[in-house]
Amino acid sequence: MIVVLRLGHRLKRDKRITTHCGLVARAFGADKIILSGEKDENVISSLKNVVDQWGGPFDIEYRKSWKSVIKEYKAKGFKIVHLTMYGIPYEKLLPKLKGNLLVIIGSEKVPAEVYDLTDYNVAIGNQPHSEVAALAVLLRSLLPMPSFSGKIKIVPSERGKRVEKI
Amino acid sequence: MIVVLRLGHRLKRDKRITTHCGLVARAFGADKIILSGEKDENVISSLKNVVDQWGGPFDIEYRKSWKSVIKEYKAKGFKIVHLTMYGIPYEKLLPKLKGNLLVIIGSEKVPAEVYDLTDYNVAIGNQPHSEVAALAVLLRSLLPMPSFSGKIKIVPSERGKRVEKI
Repeated sequence: MIVVLRLGHRLKRDKRITTHCGLVARAFGADKIILSGEKDENVISSLKNVVDQWGGPFDIEYRKSWKSVIKEYKAKGFKIVHLTMYGIPYEKLLPKLKGNLLVIIGSEKVPAEVYDLTDYNVAIGNQPHSEVAALAVLLRSLLPMPSFSGKIKIVPSERGKRVEKI
Repeated sequence: MIVVLRLGHRLKRDKRITTHCGLVARAFGADKIILSGEKDENVISSLKNVVDQWGGPFDIEYRKSWKSVIKEYKAKGFKIVHLTMYGIPYEKLLPKLKGNLLVIIGSEKVPAEVYDLTDYNVAIGNQPHSEVAALAVLLRSLLPMPSFSGKIKIVPSERGKRVEKI
């Protein structure tokens, strides 16, 4: 089981990035995203809407205290994985990233404490880029692409857009 | 050579997503990003600033007409690759994606014409997620992680943040 914890959402700046994080978590096979920081009903409802239309299972939860999330999942035996450009390149750590994982992605300012509460600080390259990209690449290297059975389904096409409504 | 073309940037909505696209293009080994849509000096300067601090080579260009970009790169012999959730799963197309590529990523409304002007419409999964994620996963599967020699460099660490200034 893989749960994603998004830290420090800011209503003014992060709406679209956090939504992309949630969509990536679902599309690349995580089971759940927990949103922390400022509570953003728009992000929550747009993610729930995607699950409703395109299929699940995929859970979305808001928790005010990220620290309690880390403690809870640690107690459940999850390994705590923090995606950060300051960490160890993921290719080296992949063999250790098995079993149940809590994958933490930050926004701009990650509290120093996070680095100590985690089992692994993992870098998808040590260059600045994007938590959206880091999450996608990590999940892609841990899991097969999942399939969904929702109300809408794309028929892969060489040209144009083919959508089936079920 | 891989050049990324970002379509349809909107000043009000896309600042951060387009910046992440540019950062991902650089960090995962593309040579250049061409920004189209509304011209956004903030995005251009923040990407240029990253290249200045963290190293290149990586070019950033603004072009008003995306169509002229496609025509130009087609004439130069580049294959035109459009990342879209409606396309053919990338795993099937990877063997064809060799040589010089122009990789197109859209924002919310991609003109229907794009699907016809491209050589390959490529899906990183056929579920809604993120152009940032799609670009990262595609580049990651085409190229090794590049190395840079800029003024700032991260020393990968198990805990905390180690940065070297050169």
